[in-house]
Amino acid sequence: MVTNKNSILRLSRYKNALYRFKTIGFFKIFSDYLADAVGVTSAQVRKDFSLFGISGNKRGGYQIDALIEKLNDILGKNELQKVILAGAGNLGSALIKYKSFEKEGIKIVAAFDIDPAKHNPKLPVPVLPLEELESFVKSHNTKIGIICVPDIAAQHTLDVMIRAGINGVLNFAPIQLKTAENCIVSNVNLETELENLIYFVNALQKAPNVRLTDN
Amino acid sequence: MVTNKNSILRLSRYKNALYRFKTIGFFKIFSDYLADAVGVTSAQVRKDFSLFGISGNKRGGYQIDALIEKLNDILGKNELQKVILAGAGNLGSALIKYKSFEKEGIKIVAAFDIDPAKHNPKLPVPVLPLEELESFVKSHNTKIGIICVPDIAAQHTLDVMIRAGINGVLNFAPIQLKTAENCIVSNVNLETELENLIYFVNALQKAPNVRLTDN
Repeated sequence: MVTNKNSILRLSRYKNALYRFKTIGFFKIFSDYLADAVGVTSAQVRKDFSLFGISGNKRGGYQIDALIEKLNDILGKNELQKVILAGAGNLGSALIKYKSFEKEGIKIVAAFDIDPAKHNPKLPVPVLPLEELESFVKSHNTKIGIICVPDIAAQHTLDVMIRAGINGVLNFAPIQLKTAENCIVSNVNLETELENLIYFVNALQKAPNVRLTDN
Repeated sequence: MVTNKNSILRLSRYKNALYRFKTIGFFKIFSDYLADAVGVTSAQVRKDFSLFGISGNKRGGYQIDALIEKLNDILGKNELQKVILAGAGNLGSALIKYKSFEKEGIKIVAAFDIDPAKHNPKLPVPVLPLEELESFVKSHNTKIGIICVPDIAAQHTLDVMIRAGINGVLNFAPIQLKTAENCIVSNVNLETELENLIYFVNALQKAPNVRLTDN
């Protein structure tokens, strides 16, 4: 069975809409209400749900609480998400201290670096040698990694993570990485984001009769 | 005249392709070569160019050096891009030290914070009171800002930046901001990036017969 990333992202939007319905007093919901709230067709809702084994009752609709529980389970929101990080430089250290992750139930449990000067197993988030990444990931059963190493070290770091069993990587190194089939890599390219913004601002100033649209 | 963000992003891809053509010895280029290199139609290339007042010669094509110069000028790559930052916490401080920006000709010239304990005008990148943002931006003619403040302070910070004359903002606060017509806001939502990745990994583990596609 082949699905696409968007169907998974829609599950999280259904979940958020369900919380809103619950807040205003709903207990049960039909797929067309949910479809309207998220801006898709009700056929799409049913298709997305059936893909992940969620079944409703054509007459009675879905029980909201049970549906939220099921979606949170599928999306992994029911448990604390343990994440490891490679590269304890400026950006990596900032991410370790980044409070907004905790609100979403995400916790960076360990960081790894090749620089012995950065190692400190006694910190709340220990900084360990990169060689220990594989055994740590295996013993702690972590599935998600963040790469904050310099671009020349990024591919090697990803390879180490994949070998350890990491299935999802958020990559901050400004380089396109070769991944394996069982590991999804999402790139956050801060330079490109900022560069594109500069392009927009500059281009608009050079052509002041041009107005920007999103599509 | 209305244009879209993609046309500006294509200009940067044309520029990168032109550097490659130059490297392999080209001096002149026709729009269909450039179109092939970037994966668009030659009509699209000519349309994008005419939007920004770039004209070629139907017989002789475009002079590569002159075209690169013109594109860099439109995109603002010919000059150092001065950027200000609001919120000198962990993430803000990491961005100030982030080396990859410099490679792209981007320099954070000052940071602003409401916390007096963080103020230090003598640092290489001075940290100044937020109240000084407006006068700094006006006297240094900066157009780009980065927001790294907590989400509750983000809208106020954006309002201050807009009033100061900032036209483009990279926003790291996990909140949707209301902007003005003359200011583009790009959001980098690290929680959402990581959360989506966790969703993918979890959903795929819950439905192991599901395979992920990009579209």
